[in-house]
Amino acid sequence: MRTGIPLEEAQTLLLDLIPPAKECQVTLDNAVGRVLSQDIQTTINLPPFDKSPLDGYALQAKDTKDASISNPAILNVVEEVRAGYVPEKQVISGTAIKVMTGAPLPKGADVIIKFEDVNRTGNKVELFYPLKPGCNIIRAGEDVCRGEVIAQKGTVLTPPLVGLLAGIGVTAIPVVSKVKVAILSTGDEVIDPAEELTPGKIYNSNLHSLGAYCSQLGAAPLTIGIVPDEEAAIVERITQALELADLVITTGGVSVGDYDIVPAALKKIGADIVFWKVDMKPGSPVIAARYNNKLIIGLSGNPAAAFITFDLIVVPLIKKMMGFENKLPLKFSAILGDDFNKASDQRRFLRAKVQKLNDINYVKLTGEQSNGVLKSMVACNVLIDVPAGSGPLQAGQEVAAVMVGGSDLLL
Amino acid sequence: MRTGIPLEEAQTLLLDLIPPAKECQVTLDNAVGRVLSQDIQTTINLPPFDKSPLDGYALQAKDTKDASISNPAILNVVEEVRAGYVPEKQVISGTAIKVMTGAPLPKGADVIIKFEDVNRTGNKVELFYPLKPGCNIIRAGEDVCRGEVIAQKGTVLTPPLVGLLAGIGVTAIPVVSKVKVAILSTGDEVIDPAEELTPGKIYNSNLHSLGAYCSQLGAAPLTIGIVPDEEAAIVERITQALELADLVITTGGVSVGDYDIVPAALKKIGADIVFWKVDMKPGSPVIAARYNNKLIIGLSGNPAAAFITFDLIVVPLIKKMMGFENKLPLKFSAILGDDFNKASDQRRFLRAKVQKLNDINYVKLTGEQSNGVLKSMVACNVLIDVPAGSGPLQAGQEVAAVMVGGSDLLL
Repeated sequence: MRTGIPLEEAQTLLLDLIPPAKECQVTLDNAVGRVLSQDIQTTINLPPFDKSPLDGYALQAKDTKDASISNPAILNVVEEVRAGYVPEKQVISGTAIKVMTGAPLPKGADVIIKFEDVNRTGNKVELFYPLKPGCNIIRAGEDVCRGEVIAQKGTVLTPPLVGLLAGIGVTAIPVVSKVKVAILSTGDEVIDPAEELTPGKIYNSNLHSLGAYCSQLGAAPLTIGIVPDEEAAIVERITQALELADLVITTGGVSVGDYDIVPAALKKIGADIVFWKVDMKPGSPVIAARYNNKLIIGLSGNPAAAFITFDLIVVPLIKKMMGFENKLPLKFSAILGDDFNKASDQRRFLRAKVQKLNDINYVKLTGEQSNGVLKSMVACNVLIDVPAGSGPLQAGQEVAAVMVGGSDLLL
Repeated sequence: MRTGIPLEEAQTLLLDLIPPAKECQVTLDNAVGRVLSQDIQTTINLPPFDKSPLDGYALQAKDTKDASISNPAILNVVEEVRAGYVPEKQVISGTAIKVMTGAPLPKGADVIIKFEDVNRTGNKVELFYPLKPGCNIIRAGEDVCRGEVIAQKGTVLTPPLVGLLAGIGVTAIPVVSKVKVAILSTGDEVIDPAEELTPGKIYNSNLHSLGAYCSQLGAAPLTIGIVPDEEAAIVERITQALELADLVITTGGVSVGDYDIVPAALKKIGADIVFWKVDMKPGSPVIAARYNNKLIIGLSGNPAAAFITFDLIVVPLIKKMMGFENKLPLKFSAILGDDFNKASDQRRFLRAKVQKLNDINYVKLTGEQSNGVLKSMVACNVLIDVPAGSGPLQAGQEVAAVMVGGSDLLL
């Protein structure tokens, strides 16, 4: 069993083990935000036929060759075609067909003139200047051509892309399945937030912060609930979770104290331990195991530690299973906006917020950095990556940072 | 009735008329992404009691005053307390209580030492150096204090904030209601994408692109469907939509041709027309009306025109009703990355994508700019705002741009 490994090794090990994205189909109403699991090729032209962009008259340009204000061309209007209908007649020399916006271009016509530019009397129209063939016609396939790949596998479905799929008649859209992430919290001290708070107990926040994060990523959280600190109960609930979900996350019970029993439960289940403990603070006791081709990641029970390790270790796995192209959090360098007075024996991640001033990224600490504190996670959109062996940090020095909390989703 | 008004006037008129956000409650599982409708004040401390951050021994610091390796302090371990339980005894001089991570600090104890740093034999522990009172204790209220406002009205609920709400026992969260947006498409030429494509018909894309956009904003789209070009049918469906929804959007039937009958239907219903036509291209024929304190916005039927006017005129209204602080699209200046060879008599919005190079925002056109073309909307995240009376544009010149398509949601 590997232990005390670098974060990057933990990320790589697990990304290599996580199974690839699964596939399903969704309707147009449920498509936005999903990731295409296949290229989409159009089987029709869009628009499907040559059509009129305006209300006007379709005719033959040559009939207007000598037209002028003093000598207008006069054409017989032989039909009127609304959008959604097909002309019954053809345009021949000396005739015009009235076409409304969106109506198909009648056969024989090679130009359309808008109705404001003609003089209509009875079934005659007068035209006062020569027209060039091809004007005011939207051509079939102008938007997309039959056979064209309009979107590639891996593309996130945006509202206009959903519209384009509708426009080409694609109603069953192949997308990556929502990853089912089971989350369970261990700990005799942990109670549901709806219960009455009694002495020695704390409300469970991990189930809800991590569940919300899964929802934000487009995954499906399965909140298995709170399990007491008993090995048999933990074995039973993890086993259940493995049946229901693609990935199982636990919080609590991963340190080395007498009652830290998630590692023991994982061994009892017969899961292969991939690693236990990552060289980082907070959250170092994280354990990863594999059973029946599924991963179980045990995180610290401390709310901030659980959240940070979820962000750095679990989110890349969910992103891979969801088909996202960029899985690992974005790294960048920034200028520290505050002093941080502690030395860091171990590699440490500090909660901070990035703000750009005059094109320089400043990162300011978001408050108290203890393992258990959630308040400083709330304003946090980056983690400052402080190397092991660092002394106190000073405002103005350059630091490494990673984007977290889903703030990189739209980059 | 106002007509041909500037876009900014249209936005302001409608933002003034749209009713304020409504309120509802959601559970923790449904909270992420919603906007708080009230400040949240905590009624408990978090953590609720002084507790141990580690597995160790709670004792009185003064008992270790003279401790050394050659002369260890020896204490009687009188109890062991796991997380979730309450000590039955107090620590008095000469005693220690074993505490597991998360257990409450026993009364009488003023310091905790980690178990690795002591020598335990039977019910005795030996300590080898003096301890300072207060070490290794997480204080009640370290994260948040009773009475503190932990999040203000208007805040978007992020995963850590959902966790913090759970942590303080808030399970019914006051949020802004999802805005119900009814969307209906008019036009005899428009058919559902699931139907067979027959001559003269096109698949409806607007219902799906605009519905997806509503979903992306966290609103609830009600896709009323396709209505034929008959005034009575349009009157009936808009009337239905007004009963079901907070805001009604139609596409098609707003120009001035013989069959552009949405304005006529709105008058028939008895709606007050707020304006008809905005000085912009594409999408100028947009009409806005008000009935029973609800707005109806009629957009062009051309897919790109519908999408762009939805983005610039309707999205700010949805954002206001959803409680978002920033309603209008973000404006910025950028360098044009391509030539655009047409002159613009009218104010024109061009579809483009912004890319930052060496801290300069470049905007590159995303393709064909016709009213009906959706493909160039797909890659678009900004619109270039070209003033009326502009000649052809050249690569390298400075232009004004606005962020669209939801790309500003996370700024």
